[in-house]
Amino acid sequence: MCEANAYLRHDKEDELLMESVDKVIPEEGQLLLENIFGVKKIVKGIIKELSLVDHKIIIERN
Amino acid sequence: MCEANAYLRHDKEDELLMESVDKVIPEEGQLLLENIFGVKKIVKGIIKELSLVDHKIIIERN
Repeated sequence: MCEANAYLRHDKEDELLMESVDKVIPEEGQLLLENIFGVKKIVKGIIKELSLVDHKIIIERN
Repeated sequence: MCEANAYLRHDKEDELLMESVDKVIPEEGQLLLENIFGVKKIVKGIIKELSLVDHKIIIERN
């Protein structure tokens, strides 16, 4: 499986928001995250960086 | 390896932009894509959707 973990980037720390994320849909300053189990989460923020080989989605507050 | 393929979404078709994408960095209406071989490409657009289990990054013109 090739899901990734979503992190919220604060100053120098990355806080884990959700593991095993499959889908990410940006919508008006928010991100809809859905993991491989179908659990959904909406977070305010934008995608700062994807690093897929490292399984990382980095999100920042906008 | 858990890279994905980047597609540009036109009306109803998805055009393959780059295979084996590792990193995506959004910057001022552009996306910097880098594949697992270190090849970089800058495209105008925004991330419309990630579907990681399907290995898809969907990009739309902004």
